[in-house]
Amino acid sequence: MNQISLKKTIVLLIILLTTLPVMGQKINVLIWDEQQPTQKPTYENFLGNEIAARLKTNKNNLEIRSVKLDDPEQGLTPENLNWAKVLIWWGHARQGEISSETVKRKLMKRIRTGKLHLIALHSAHWATPFMECMNERTMQDARRLFPQPKGGRTVEFEFVPMPFKGAPMKGSAITPSFLALKRGKDLAKVVTTLPNCCFPSYRPDGKPSTMTVTLPEHPIAKGLPKTFKLSSTEMYNEPFHVPRPDEVIFKEEFSQGEWFRSGMTWKVGKGKVFYFRPGHETYPVFKDPNVIKIIENACHWLGSQKSKY
Amino acid sequence: MNQISLKKTIVLLIILLTTLPVMGQKINVLIWDEQQPTQKPTYENFLGNEIAARLKTNKNNLEIRSVKLDDPEQGLTPENLNWAKVLIWWGHARQGEISSETVKRKLMKRIRTGKLHLIALHSAHWATPFMECMNERTMQDARRLFPQPKGGRTVEFEFVPMPFKGAPMKGSAITPSFLALKRGKDLAKVVTTLPNCCFPSYRPDGKPSTMTVTLPEHPIAKGLPKTFKLSSTEMYNEPFHVPRPDEVIFKEEFSQGEWFRSGMTWKVGKGKVFYFRPGHETYPVFKDPNVIKIIENACHWLGSQKSKY
Amino acid sequence: MNQISLKKTIVLLIILLTTLPVMGQKINVLIWDEQQPTQKPTYENFLGNEIAARLKTNKNNLEIRSVKLDDPEQGLTPENLNWAKVLIWWGHARQGEISSETVKRKLMKRIRTGKLHLIALHSAHWATPFMECMNERTMQDARRLFPQPKGGRTVEFEFVPMPFKGAPMKGSAITPSFLALKRGKDLAKVVTTLPNCCFPSYRPDGKPSTMTVTLPEHPIAKGLPKTFKLSSTEMYNEPFHVPRPDEVIFKEEFSQGEWFRSGMTWKVGKGKVFYFRPGHETYPVFKDPNVIKIIENACHWLGSQKSKY
Amino acid sequence: MNQISLKKTIVLLIILLTTLPVMGQKINVLIWDEQQPTQKPTYENFLGNEIAARLKTNKNNLEIRSVKLDDPEQGLTPENLNWAKVLIWWGHARQGEISSETVKRKLMKRIRTGKLHLIALHSAHWATPFMECMNERTMQDARRLFPQPKGGRTVEFEFVPMPFKGAPMKGSAITPSFLALKRGKDLAKVVTTLPNCCFPSYRPDGKPSTMTVTLPEHPIAKGLPKTFKLSSTEMYNEPFHVPRPDEVIFKEEFSQGEWFRSGMTWKVGKGKVFYFRPGHETYPVFKDPNVIKIIENACHWLGSQKSKY
Repeated sequence: MNQISLKKTIVLLIILLTTLPVMGQKINVLIWDEQQPTQKPTYENFLGNEIAARLKTNKNNLEIRSVKLDDPEQGLTPENLNWAKVLIWWGHARQGEISSETVKRKLMKRIRTGKLHLIALHSAHWATPFMECMNERTMQDARRLFPQPKGGRTVEFEFVPMPFKGAPMKGSAITPSFLALKRGKDLAKVVTTLPNCCFPSYRPDGKPSTMTVTLPEHPIAKGLPKTFKLSSTEMYNEPFHVPRPDEVIFKEEFSQGEWFRSGMTWKVGKGKVFYFRPGHETYPVFKDPNVIKIIENACHWLGSQKSKY
Repeated sequence: MNQISLKKTIVLLIILLTTLPVMGQKINVLIWDEQQPTQKPTYENFLGNEIAARLKTNKNNLEIRSVKLDDPEQGLTPENLNWAKVLIWWGHARQGEISSETVKRKLMKRIRTGKLHLIALHSAHWATPFMECMNERTMQDARRLFPQPKGGRTVEFEFVPMPFKGAPMKGSAITPSFLALKRGKDLAKVVTTLPNCCFPSYRPDGKPSTMTVTLPEHPIAKGLPKTFKLSSTEMYNEPFHVPRPDEVIFKEEFSQGEWFRSGMTWKVGKGKVFYFRPGHETYPVFKDPNVIKIIENACHWLGSQKSKY
Repeated sequence: MNQISLKKTIVLLIILLTTLPVMGQKINVLIWDEQQPTQKPTYENFLGNEIAARLKTNKNNLEIRSVKLDDPEQGLTPENLNWAKVLIWWGHARQGEISSETVKRKLMKRIRTGKLHLIALHSAHWATPFMECMNERTMQDARRLFPQPKGGRTVEFEFVPMPFKGAPMKGSAITPSFLALKRGKDLAKVVTTLPNCCFPSYRPDGKPSTMTVTLPEHPIAKGLPKTFKLSSTEMYNEPFHVPRPDEVIFKEEFSQGEWFRSGMTWKVGKGKVFYFRPGHETYPVFKDPNVIKIIENACHWLGSQKSKY
Repeated sequence: MNQISLKKTIVLLIILLTTLPVMGQKINVLIWDEQQPTQKPTYENFLGNEIAARLKTNKNNLEIRSVKLDDPEQGLTPENLNWAKVLIWWGHARQGEISSETVKRKLMKRIRTGKLHLIALHSAHWATPFMECMNERTMQDARRLFPQPKGGRTVEFEFVPMPFKGAPMKGSAITPSFLALKRGKDLAKVVTTLPNCCFPSYRPDGKPSTMTVTLPEHPIAKGLPKTFKLSSTEMYNEPFHVPRPDEVIFKEEFSQGEWFRSGMTWKVGKGKVFYFRPGHETYPVFKDPNVIKIIENACHWLGSQKSKY
């Protein structure tokens, strides 16, 4: 083999290896939807199945399963969870039926160890899996931001949960928050208020919003225009009470001047979480090709082992 | 009609009216079982179905439905709950999958208003429905034991939940407990520690136990011998951390001298709760005719409108 | 020396050694009194000075200093505290002026290390020094009753203070209390409610009470009749919310059948605390020779290094 | 009287009335100093007495009394407190000796009703009277910022105190903070974290600082240059954990670029609090004529009934 052809072969190999995740190894995506009757007028076969059908139509390397709250083990059988690499979550009216204990026992270890990654959609800001991920990330943040000093006394960490699931008032303190106190010169105690995972106001008026890509080179934004419109969506208004994200990929602006960090990612242990805001079940958001593209990109990015972004 | 036949007619009427609940109106009983594989060696068709089958065989006025955790809505569909008058609950390994929010939304109002009554079996001491009933009763007890003084300042009630689901140590304070403080001469604040709903120790050795009827005239004890043996059961050891019951119907004694209040009732609003201790799923407790008799009696008693015991 | 005289000498030596603490080494006693004007009708020169004068009159080895709340450093100068071996405390209306921080900084280390011992009189049940001693003892009790298991996870100890200084209602839970929870089989957390240091009711009617010596061989009871009357005292009613004492030396009974553990001792680290109930400042309790005898005995017992009772 | 002389008379009267508070009515100022020996090298006769002497020398309408921690009732006799209109507070090492209960009982009602006003100097940021005023103001802020909605359910207010007196870490959440939660659409609960009353760092290096008057027309800034130097002071670094002040009158800048809101006022009920930062006891800050001028101005402003600024 002469030098030129060696070079060519190497280049070809690199291209092959780079595209392998897309062309080769399948990524298993479990779509979880509570499947409320209120979805029916807009999503004939329910919201989760709509996303499933659209992802299947696209040419990609995603394997899709669609489950619902009323399936055995609430759709979260060991078989499903061992199979899945990415979990897409839609919940709204019946989110209270998924207990924290279920999520802790079934999902958190998988996410923490990077075996499973989560995509939470719109009203899933108050889904138990998303909230538990945000709690976990907040606890990691507390210990990272306020580390145990070497040779010092043991720092006491206290984690204060929300007293109940209630939206914050405009003007409320923003959560999570970390009150870190010294005794003398040394850190002694950190009182962490866990994240509320909600925002002060919303408006289900079905008006359009404008999405702007804030990280154009992020894999989740691949192939998207710099800005695009959603024809009809609910409004959520910042501040969103979540831990500081690793990345903000989309900014969304609404009809009365409100805005939202509408696509964010967090590492939770070795797992990743992507929150995507637009919705909800009475608007055809999940029939929009750009939205499906984002979800598809997110599945690829979360599901790819090579991802080092 | 002469006086004697009038008397006879009245007596007959009384007998008729008294037996009507048994002969006439059907009582709808929903049996809820998490249906764990570990039940299989002892209960081929699962524990809940075993109870269902035995209750159906007996001549009584009970209508039986058997549901499981993996049914739609975890077996707790509005249809099932509107139909049922009595809910028999078996849970153990997967109790964490029933969220407090589910129980509060679906069950508590029904129980509080007397539309539904609960029978909790053995390991269901930590089932969410039983725990929520014990919490509710404890809160009612707090306000009953320490009433708002007329014309005084508003008494503050604080309810402290268990920090996590952990059995109490031997020697621990017993819950629920009520710390009631005055400012000056008047009641000002009641800090209530909610019930742990567990006990310091257990022993799953399958040894026999002896049951003694402590309230022989109670409808739940009807037709039972004064004492009887269970051939093989797990041991639970007092103190059981529950609010003071309205009635203790059975006392159980174990091989190493331990004892337990093994049949207790509480009013929760207008509803009633019956806890029955013997179990668990690897012992044939629920094949014992006396146990089935107790459950049958409890269904009648809870399900009967006329009950004034 | 023949054998008889040797024996005699030994006996003499024993007598000498036993009585040495009384005859020899002086015990420095600091009497602390808030010196309220309400004391005046009964104690012309204030209550603390009355006790001081009477202790000085008796033939004993006590050195007495009497200080008051309005002295420099509230009477608690380093000079006074280094000098004193025993601290007698009387407080009532102005107890709130002694801060916890003062007591922690000035008294607790001295008591914990056995350099200082405390006698708390009557209404000093809510004096800051007595309360801090009871808190400290409770914390020691928590760790002694529920020890860290070897090789296990670190047990979390939480100490919950009273929300405010309020007497407990009749029927309230009794403090201190220890809620000890396991995770699985191992102790994981102990939630300790600190002692209220009060009791459900009192009656300042100045009626007589009857004192009974329950530990006649205790040095504090030395020279006292088995029972004796106090001509005029206030009534306090059990349960007194304090940690379980090491010794109950006196039981007191009141005109309407109430009773109290009216002389109790606790070890607090290497220090000792003696609480003596009879009072208060408008009754001539501290002019009673038996009461003075008890205080004198307590000073000797607390102040004696040899004490091994 | 002709019209011109009427006008003149009115003008004269206005001048007279305006200057009356200064010329006429005396303002009683109680200077409270813990009088630590460490003050001696810089303030021969203690810090409080130094301020007293300098205020007396100036021609003003202030009546001055100087008291100390070791005076009867810690200097806070009813006689002193009924006399005083303004209370100047210096504390540092022995602040823990003033209990919250003392301050609540003796000072807070007087301040709340406008009978007494507080000037807190430098390290008195952690003096009990200043901290209690900041707590009170925070509680007032909570109810003002998050008012009870008319016709709605009773909003629950919870106030969380600092777990101990410890400086906040750099990067800690800032206190006070208000977490306000809705149930559905309505405000339901406000969890207020009370102010820490400290700041993340300090440096007692005795370097100069620069003071800038930020509200030149404020009576407290009267007669002061727009900026001036303090020759030697300790550094405190923002953020100072106090409720948002009504006015920031001075900004102070330090040798390494740090800054502080060094003169602030708050209304607490009908009373007023002025915090003045420069210090501490080993630097001759309180011999600086500008500083004395500020304290004098503050006494006039706080002590004047006519003040409507």
